[in-house]
Amino acid sequence: MKKCVENVKLVKPLVHNITNYVTVNDVANMIIACGGSPIMADEIEEVEAITTITNALNINIGTLNSRTIESMLVAGKKANELNHPVVLDCVGAGASELRNVTINRLINNVNFDVIKGNISEIKAVVLNTNTTSGVDANDADQLTSDNLQEVIAMVKKAAQRFDAIIVVTGKYDIVADANQAYLVKNGHEMMAHITGSGCMLSGLIACFLAANLNNRLQAVASCLVTYGICGQLAASNLKASEGNATYRNYLIDAMSLFNEDVMMEMANYEVY
Amino acid sequence: MKKCVENVKLVKPLVHNITNYVTVNDVANMIIACGGSPIMADEIEEVEAITTITNALNINIGTLNSRTIESMLVAGKKANELNHPVVLDCVGAGASELRNVTINRLINNVNFDVIKGNISEIKAVVLNTNTTSGVDANDADQLTSDNLQEVIAMVKKAAQRFDAIIVVTGKYDIVADANQAYLVKNGHEMMAHITGSGCMLSGLIACFLAANLNNRLQAVASCLVTYGICGQLAASNLKASEGNATYRNYLIDAMSLFNEDVMMEMANYEVY
Amino acid sequence: MKKCVENVKLVKPLVHNITNYVTVNDVANMIIACGGSPIMADEIEEVEAITTITNALNINIGTLNSRTIESMLVAGKKANELNHPVVLDCVGAGASELRNVTINRLINNVNFDVIKGNISEIKAVVLNTNTTSGVDANDADQLTSDNLQEVIAMVKKAAQRFDAIIVVTGKYDIVADANQAYLVKNGHEMMAHITGSGCMLSGLIACFLAANLNNRLQAVASCLVTYGICGQLAASNLKASEGNATYRNYLIDAMSLFNEDVMMEMANYEVY
Repeated sequence: MKKCVENVKLVKPLVHNITNYVTVNDVANMIIACGGSPIMADEIEEVEAITTITNALNINIGTLNSRTIESMLVAGKKANELNHPVVLDCVGAGASELRNVTINRLINNVNFDVIKGNISEIKAVVLNTNTTSGVDANDADQLTSDNLQEVIAMVKKAAQRFDAIIVVTGKYDIVADANQAYLVKNGHEMMAHITGSGCMLSGLIACFLAANLNNRLQAVASCLVTYGICGQLAASNLKASEGNATYRNYLIDAMSLFNEDVMMEMANYEVY
Repeated sequence: MKKCVENVKLVKPLVHNITNYVTVNDVANMIIACGGSPIMADEIEEVEAITTITNALNINIGTLNSRTIESMLVAGKKANELNHPVVLDCVGAGASELRNVTINRLINNVNFDVIKGNISEIKAVVLNTNTTSGVDANDADQLTSDNLQEVIAMVKKAAQRFDAIIVVTGKYDIVADANQAYLVKNGHEMMAHITGSGCMLSGLIACFLAANLNNRLQAVASCLVTYGICGQLAASNLKASEGNATYRNYLIDAMSLFNEDVMMEMANYEVY
Repeated sequence: MKKCVENVKLVKPLVHNITNYVTVNDVANMIIACGGSPIMADEIEEVEAITTITNALNINIGTLNSRTIESMLVAGKKANELNHPVVLDCVGAGASELRNVTINRLINNVNFDVIKGNISEIKAVVLNTNTTSGVDANDADQLTSDNLQEVIAMVKKAAQRFDAIIVVTGKYDIVADANQAYLVKNGHEMMAHITGSGCMLSGLIACFLAANLNNRLQAVASCLVTYGICGQLAASNLKASEGNATYRNYLIDAMSLFNEDVMMEMANYEVY
């Protein structure tokens, strides 16, 4: 895992992001924090050129619109052609027909290395359910010790069906391909009290993939562990008068100061 | 007033925002800070669906464009149909013909629960004056002890005409319906030294309305008092080396840590 | 130099920005921090009106698209007509054909007072090279003691050709017109570890120009010195647990607290 983090710092991956305008600044600073370099470009006339000069593509449908949906498709196909890793963050899947249709179009036309969402979003993608309420996971969908095995099986099956690593975020995160699943217990509840914690993660996943092309499942699991540890470190830096906005800064700060030597002490995950 | 704040935390309103790309991240984190949940969506194909699953709609014309103006109209009508509270933030009213025309179209087609702006913006809306210089209030328009009664009368009249609560922000804020006006003296001058203090307020107003449907004027007044207190608390946390960017974070932080018990001690308002 | 900074606080320039959605919030807060007032507007129907009521125009192609490119052209021509200073930030020049074509269209149709970029971007504009890798300068292009004279000569020649002040950012910055070049050594390496440090600078340059119309080269040089000093002060405020996100806040904070009396002690530049 430590090696995966080090590789990001060595490779300094350049990541092309087609992402929402809500959290785009945080995504950029988080990618810089981990050692990568972000470029945001969503105009259809240039997305192929931008994808060509970068190492990975991160597609996030948070504020999708008719103009950028087409850019996502064009960029995704180009990234596939160049064998660049491609990440899909299914923000708000299930919240509107447009999001569902767009995700289907994207998945049918682009081979994603990683498909990521919270449990409600992933269920919307996999099962065509509509339990999503906005961009937060529905309480009824939360992972519990009772449904853990069932959810992991569902995620592995989805990974097989989509031929992609599936990332399900929540109190505990699941990272799985068809054969193996990591249950990542790192993280902190404050991460749910800021906007963009999921979007920043997608940017990081793109960096970790681009720097660890031959070891993708472990790269993504390492990314989740690293990010979760940053979440914990950020919380420990929070003073009594500091709340969610400062927490956001400390979360990015923690990544920019990340010490791989602390990683193995703090890493908290199980493999299924 | 305290009850209005508590209700936001209990109801956890989901707010649909069609807002500008300058301050959208702050709006999202501020809505989370007060206990709500934000979703940003401006594509015409999905705004009805998003409005349907949310509890309130916040329309902000800060960076309006031809695509999103139509989305605002569609979403606003849908919110009216569903009896969801709708807030209009008239950013830059009077600064361009497009803004004036758009505000007129919005007001003529959507029933707003709250119309908000600084004194220059509200005058532009009400009197069709053009004293706006950009997005800040014109000095000549500022509220003084000399013009207070006159301005309050103007605001009450506007509230009657538009059948909406009118919010005028400034050193002192006015919240009024046709019959009653709150003059809110909470707040801090640093709030004028960051971008987004008005936009964040609109998001908060949508939350407070959604959580206090039967008590709207008091809900909005409580929102202004709460926000103003947060502005004061944020200023008191500022260290000598910290300026406007950190102040923005502390302002959001203060909301995320808001203690209703401190509220009644610090609340500073008059009713007219 | 000190006078140039003071003038910004006296004049309080209103700056019209057509800029990217990644760093727009930081640009706005930075403009406020230096004493100016920002307005962001990119809809073609209103950009002439907005430019008319402001004092300077800042065009940044960071996330250009077909809609906003036309707005940039219309606003730029209007600003020229009104003799407002106009700044062009060539973000990602050389990274795509669309960016190259757009920059050419802008330069051929608008008289810019300042054309700004990192060394790779400026080379792309001047020499039509394509050494850009994303939005960061290529290592091979970096300024060294060996190529300093050569680069300064290239920049002066470009300034003559485009009849504009050219700003080249990097470890050391160059600010030059056809006759004179400032080599600005203020700044801090952390400025390269956040997104938006270049974009914020463009906003500041527009403020400094608008407040110092009769002394443009020195105004821009003063802006770079001021910003560089802020970068140094921000770094000195950074605690051990604070990284790039907090640094971004401290950078803006330092500008909002800037004391011109400290300036002449810390200013570090040479004139060629």
